[in-house]
Amino acid sequence: MKKIVIALGGNAIKQWDQKGTAGEQYENVKTSCAHIVRIVQRGYRVVITHGNGPQVGSLLIQQEEGAHAVPAQPLSICGAMSQGQIGFMIQQALLNELKDNRLSRDVVTLVTQVMVDRQDPGFQNPTKPIGPFYSKAQKEKMEKNGGMVFKAVRNQDGERYRRVVASPDPLRILEGRMIKDLFDRGVIVIASGGGGIPVIMDEQGHVSGAEAVIDKDLAGEKLAEAVGADLFLILTDVEKVYLHYGTKRQVGLGKVSLDKAQQYLKNNQFPPGSMGPKVEACIRFIKYGGEKAIITSLDRAVDALDGKTGTHILPDQKRGPTTWS
Amino acid sequence: MKKIVIALGGNAIKQWDQKGTAGEQYENVKTSCAHIVRIVQRGYRVVITHGNGPQVGSLLIQQEEGAHAVPAQPLSICGAMSQGQIGFMIQQALLNELKDNRLSRDVVTLVTQVMVDRQDPGFQNPTKPIGPFYSKAQKEKMEKNGGMVFKAVRNQDGERYRRVVASPDPLRILEGRMIKDLFDRGVIVIASGGGGIPVIMDEQGHVSGAEAVIDKDLAGEKLAEAVGADLFLILTDVEKVYLHYGTKRQVGLGKVSLDKAQQYLKNNQFPPGSMGPKVEACIRFIKYGGEKAIITSLDRAVDALDGKTGTHILPDQKRGPTTWS
Repeated sequence: MKKIVIALGGNAIKQWDQKGTAGEQYENVKTSCAHIVRIVQRGYRVVITHGNGPQVGSLLIQQEEGAHAVPAQPLSICGAMSQGQIGFMIQQALLNELKDNRLSRDVVTLVTQVMVDRQDPGFQNPTKPIGPFYSKAQKEKMEKNGGMVFKAVRNQDGERYRRVVASPDPLRILEGRMIKDLFDRGVIVIASGGGGIPVIMDEQGHVSGAEAVIDKDLAGEKLAEAVGADLFLILTDVEKVYLHYGTKRQVGLGKVSLDKAQQYLKNNQFPPGSMGPKVEACIRFIKYGGEKAIITSLDRAVDALDGKTGTHILPDQKRGPTTWS
Repeated sequence: MKKIVIALGGNAIKQWDQKGTAGEQYENVKTSCAHIVRIVQRGYRVVITHGNGPQVGSLLIQQEEGAHAVPAQPLSICGAMSQGQIGFMIQQALLNELKDNRLSRDVVTLVTQVMVDRQDPGFQNPTKPIGPFYSKAQKEKMEKNGGMVFKAVRNQDGERYRRVVASPDPLRILEGRMIKDLFDRGVIVIASGGGGIPVIMDEQGHVSGAEAVIDKDLAGEKLAEAVGADLFLILTDVEKVYLHYGTKRQVGLGKVSLDKAQQYLKNNQFPPGSMGPKVEACIRFIKYGGEKAIITSLDRAVDALDGKTGTHILPDQKRGPTTWS
């Protein structure tokens, strides 16, 4: 039985054109879980991770709007909240989908902390935008409280500001051993949601939350290592990874060797905030010893596992001709 | 090694006179965890559960205040969020306290759903107040969206309204088996936070979140059954349970037999919203086959386990003279 870590993209939980009511989100999660159940039916043992961008964005707005009545919680706490929120939705929807398919599996969400280096260069130069767009006045008010960095952005409303935080590299999943224990006993585990809650360790060995966001695919790769996964499946908006994306020369990638993937990444074929970290996560997984990493869309997930589509990143020795275009 | 379920009261996370900043809450949790570590040092194997009233109250205010920008999430989702939030704080503080005491234990929080009966009478006649006090105008606005019940209350601001929800009896912890698995492997598990996320099952066997709040001590008792605990320790504001509380005849209870505890409860010695469910939870635990259930304050927890204080509810055959007053 192959072990697989599935990383669900943001659209698996909230679509871009949706407001994000609980009903909308549950419907999306239900659809995602239907695909996951098909993967379970094919005999895979599954660990699930997921993004949390829109949910944390909403929580940050609510923290602001309610700040006159209740103290706003920091980003690490909002991340923890989103793990509870999304984990609960996936956990519940998956139980229901399994039941409809007469499958019996335990499903659970673990609140997951991911260790990052407090010296990570990201903390010196934060670049990851989070939460809503602010006016200059709002931004200046928030700056007064300290600890927040903003960047000017020009959008349809003119000059606006957005909070930026560090996006440090994940080092280790603190709950990795427990996730593996449950996984080894046949439980479907949901973990490292939103890239995990970033924590740093001080000189005394004390752990504390960091005002940062870890890339969920890079954290998912650490999760795949922690559970000893054979496969790592990143589900996103597109069926494949493309070279020369958005140009006439655009071409979808099928099977890609580790070597080739590293070359493409080095040649800046993939945008840093989007496909870049996904390909990087796949490269790390193959380097670690993984059998195969796949990037595809949610609705092609099963086909991709069957070898019919998606971009497959493979160890060098498995390099061969692309069997589909 | 005795197995113990510890139920932390609300004051273990946020004290009544605090606003609830992340810093304040973390300090409280740190203090609570110092006591828990002393219990671990005495050789007990520990599962932790906790209340979430103030945190969900804050989340509900934030849902309201931000509603013009992002959709308010239902109570079940807010409960899930609070499990992530509080679980993360306990998980982190406990790791740090264990480290300071040169103890090595895995610690993890599980997002926990608790099944309730959709026919529970609580759903017909909701009585549990949650969230803030509203003006008549606010209340009428919220009633328009449907699905919410309010009760009038008279306070220093005159006639105000408060939302009331069902407080159904917990039937089963959906993640019980996984909690037990981890516990049996020596992990300190945090579960069933805030009484668990209440879920109901429809005729098709589908599970969904319920707009309700389960008493955290009654849910904690189910947790104690699920992990096969020997002891159940409820930590609250007072060192003991009192008879004739607040009167001249007030007397603290030491050792109480199951039989006696049931008599006291039947005679309405304990207020329904407060000590009543705690004593009821202890009674259920002893009936289930538990060795001992203790109600005491956080700072007397270790002394109570050592048999020096607290109210101890015991099986009938162990009935004996009170060894302390």
